[in-house]
Amino acid sequence: MNGAQALIRTFVGSGVDVCFANPGTSEMHFVAALDDVPEMRAVLGLFEGVVTGAADGYGRMAGRPAATLLHLGPGLGNGIANLHNARRARTPIVNLVGDHATNHLAYDPPLASDIESLARPVSRWFRSSVRADALAKDAVAAVQGAFGPPGGVATLVVPADLSWQEAGEPATSRPGAELDTVVDDAVVGAAKALGSGEPAVLLVGGNAVRERGLVAAGRVASATGAKLLCETFPARLERGAGIPAVERLGYLAEFTIAQLQGAKHLVLADALAPVSFFAYPGLPGYLVPDGCEVHTLATGSDDVVGALEALADALGAPPDAAVRQAPVRPDRPTGALNAQTMAAAIGALLPEGAVVSDEGNTSGLFVSGATAGAPRHDWLCLTGGAIGQGLPVATGAAVACPDRPVLSLEADGSAMYTLQSLWTQVRESLDVTTVIINNGSYAILELELSRVGAGDPGPRARGMLDLKRPDLDFVALASGMGVPATRAGTAEEFTQQLERAFSTPGPALVEAVLR
Amino acid sequence: MNGAQALIRTFVGSGVDVCFANPGTSEMHFVAALDDVPEMRAVLGLFEGVVTGAADGYGRMAGRPAATLLHLGPGLGNGIANLHNARRARTPIVNLVGDHATNHLAYDPPLASDIESLARPVSRWFRSSVRADALAKDAVAAVQGAFGPPGGVATLVVPADLSWQEAGEPATSRPGAELDTVVDDAVVGAAKALGSGEPAVLLVGGNAVRERGLVAAGRVASATGAKLLCETFPARLERGAGIPAVERLGYLAEFTIAQLQGAKHLVLADALAPVSFFAYPGLPGYLVPDGCEVHTLATGSDDVVGALEALADALGAPPDAAVRQAPVRPDRPTGALNAQTMAAAIGALLPEGAVVSDEGNTSGLFVSGATAGAPRHDWLCLTGGAIGQGLPVATGAAVACPDRPVLSLEADGSAMYTLQSLWTQVRESLDVTTVIINNGSYAILELELSRVGAGDPGPRARGMLDLKRPDLDFVALASGMGVPATRAGTAEEFTQQLERAFSTPGPALVEAVLR
Repeated sequence: MNGAQALIRTFVGSGVDVCFANPGTSEMHFVAALDDVPEMRAVLGLFEGVVTGAADGYGRMAGRPAATLLHLGPGLGNGIANLHNARRARTPIVNLVGDHATNHLAYDPPLASDIESLARPVSRWFRSSVRADALAKDAVAAVQGAFGPPGGVATLVVPADLSWQEAGEPATSRPGAELDTVVDDAVVGAAKALGSGEPAVLLVGGNAVRERGLVAAGRVASATGAKLLCETFPARLERGAGIPAVERLGYLAEFTIAQLQGAKHLVLADALAPVSFFAYPGLPGYLVPDGCEVHTLATGSDDVVGALEALADALGAPPDAAVRQAPVRPDRPTGALNAQTMAAAIGALLPEGAVVSDEGNTSGLFVSGATAGAPRHDWLCLTGGAIGQGLPVATGAAVACPDRPVLSLEADGSAMYTLQSLWTQVRESLDVTTVIINNGSYAILELELSRVGAGDPGPRARGMLDLKRPDLDFVALASGMGVPATRAGTAEEFTQQLERAFSTPGPALVEAVLR
Repeated sequence: MNGAQALIRTFVGSGVDVCFANPGTSEMHFVAALDDVPEMRAVLGLFEGVVTGAADGYGRMAGRPAATLLHLGPGLGNGIANLHNARRARTPIVNLVGDHATNHLAYDPPLASDIESLARPVSRWFRSSVRADALAKDAVAAVQGAFGPPGGVATLVVPADLSWQEAGEPATSRPGAELDTVVDDAVVGAAKALGSGEPAVLLVGGNAVRERGLVAAGRVASATGAKLLCETFPARLERGAGIPAVERLGYLAEFTIAQLQGAKHLVLADALAPVSFFAYPGLPGYLVPDGCEVHTLATGSDDVVGALEALADALGAPPDAAVRQAPVRPDRPTGALNAQTMAAAIGALLPEGAVVSDEGNTSGLFVSGATAGAPRHDWLCLTGGAIGQGLPVATGAAVACPDRPVLSLEADGSAMYTLQSLWTQVRESLDVTTVIINNGSYAILELELSRVGAGDPGPRARGMLDLKRPDLDFVALASGMGVPATRAGTAEEFTQQLERAFSTPGPALVEAVLR
């Protein structure tokens, strides 16, 4: 079999059986091989930012990598922003990049570029294959590189000639994530700090913010009075009725400072010590209060859930000590459609088992609170700050979870980065409900412009943040890609349209025009 | 004045007075400074691929750089594909990338990444600023770096704190491109080869394919009988009635081989020796025939026009020896709308002085022939093979040339990469007529799939190249961004709609549905 076939068969044998793709000429043998290896599901994206973001959403929900298929350096370049987000989310992804045939690179043809230099900043593992008969081995190493732990982007570059040469048999090993064991000293240290009676914060993130980790963390909090907080933008947070609720660190440094104020101990469970998202003139970037001692219970490659359970046991916390969220939903809202009523409608209607891809930015502020007591669901955040993540992540999550409804909560400015995702949702009949929050601006930047101390902005500065002139019509844009779409201008309209979208299989879009 | 103000004022003083921008928090001081420096025109793009591609189109037409304004590594990442094209076009661009404040980087906040590693592959000049009071000097060096020669992308990274610190006065020097002088030996060598009587090809590209260079090349061809060819994808080719016509090298290696067959001498005038775009199993990548001697008359940093004129003089070619293209247009087509009739309509209607941004790919094949005798115009090609260039380049060209009509000839698959360009065209009231060639597929890949010898493709392979399921409705998509749009299904409809679009100021889009 040729290299492309050996590679795809090895992926399938390694548990990687979904490939988000936007191929070009140098990847044509992979495309041809799809008919030889029907176990591999190939999902076409109209733009590489869709491809890599979908692989991120898939990996977060499936717990194993999807592959991508990207066309040389420029194809990789288009996917970098969402690979950056995936890197921050520690999502396992096998990022497959085609390159020119080995002996063709010497001619520096138009599409040649330094792929490794582009790939390194987003990849925890990188290799450029050099022999067709080693491709199967390279593929296994790439999958293992994606699993880590910690998980991340493994980029494998495959020159075109290797994909068409004879490559022997596929490899059969099946990589996976093997977490490091619990470090007893870390548990003892954290128990001592939390048991000291001094004000303390337990900060959870990464692998700690799904039910088992949150139950253990909730036991610790109940037993010690420690404040339980979660990182600002978790990759995948399990929440809703029945799950211990956890307050997220604020995006704005001022909020974070208030949340941590007075703490003498900060215990980190797969989370980093809080720093501000950006620096501001005259403000601190490192947000741990002076005099607060930082204790690391577990990092991303450790068994953080095991560590939290050991910690809870060490503190003598009863198994049922965690406070679980009670079921509660807001009433269906009426009147003007604004950030609050939009949030209330989502809280009133969010289906059981939903996966929420949250790129609502400023306007999504109230949604978290309004859905806290909704039936249990997963919440996927903008981990790396590179906008254009939400729609692709929703797409990939829906591929990973065909039986779960997906809500894609998307700000207007961010939506325009990777709107092509809608087309893939139609093609793959994915049950994604997209809510576009249309406030006609990069509202978060209006906030930031005032925060960086740049003075009173004039009309030209404001013009750079405004998304009117012309208005964006998301109903037309969605229709252009085959997604049924409606526009809501009141709370009643929004509630009714959202309810219909949730109850209809396949993709749908509701444009929420906020006042 | 602060760093942002000093930098922008220095740019303006250096002749860089247009900035294509998609800023974020780390660039807010630049945004605020726009009201202090009204000489700088800031043009907002909804995605960084629009920003960098527009800077490319601007630079090709203006002959001097625009600035970009990009948000950290991910913002740069989104712009890399079109920077790759700009690198291949040797377009001068000052690529301004904001970064976190210097002392904030140590905390590795979510948006931090290795910007230099991302920037190097597309930049001929790179610097990360380290002091506010050196920003003005850095800006001058960046502009000079963009001019070269050869021209290219100069990337300047500016940490946020430098933009808000006191920075002193702007610099006042005015960089520009100073070409190397003509190398006499190269002229003598080329003259000897071309005067030998043996079959010869003169291959022109880069700076040689505007009127003066083509006139000189045409004199050489007339005097010697040498075949005059032009590189496959010139950055900016001047052509039409009154300009010496030049045949472009074929995209397909088979065509190039036929064009060069029998040549004993190949003289390169700011062009590279032909290589195939991609490698194919069993086919050569280097396309110069065996036994053909290659002579370099001038490279990209040389005065290639001067060299061609010296060569023509050395060969005794009379000043008026170049054969100029006669004015001729096809008739207005009737009947079915296909690649030929679409091309005929464009040939029949292309306005005097038009700038054509050509990303028509396979379907645009006939347009070049149909417009050869149209009134003089400029032709901008996909230089680096990274699709998604056409609409942004058209946008930037229109900013550079407000008094010239712009035709954006765009394939459906490529259009979906950077369709957000349409919004900027509306916002800036740019006179761009976009023709979307909708054939419902990545047609060029269907061709490539058969060419790489990957066997007879099955339905799953074909599915990766097909842009149906669902169909793309470009009229709806354009309307969603405020561009008046119509759909043409016959040659008559297309001709009529194109005529109306050309005669109406501002952006318009015609979707050509090919049979």
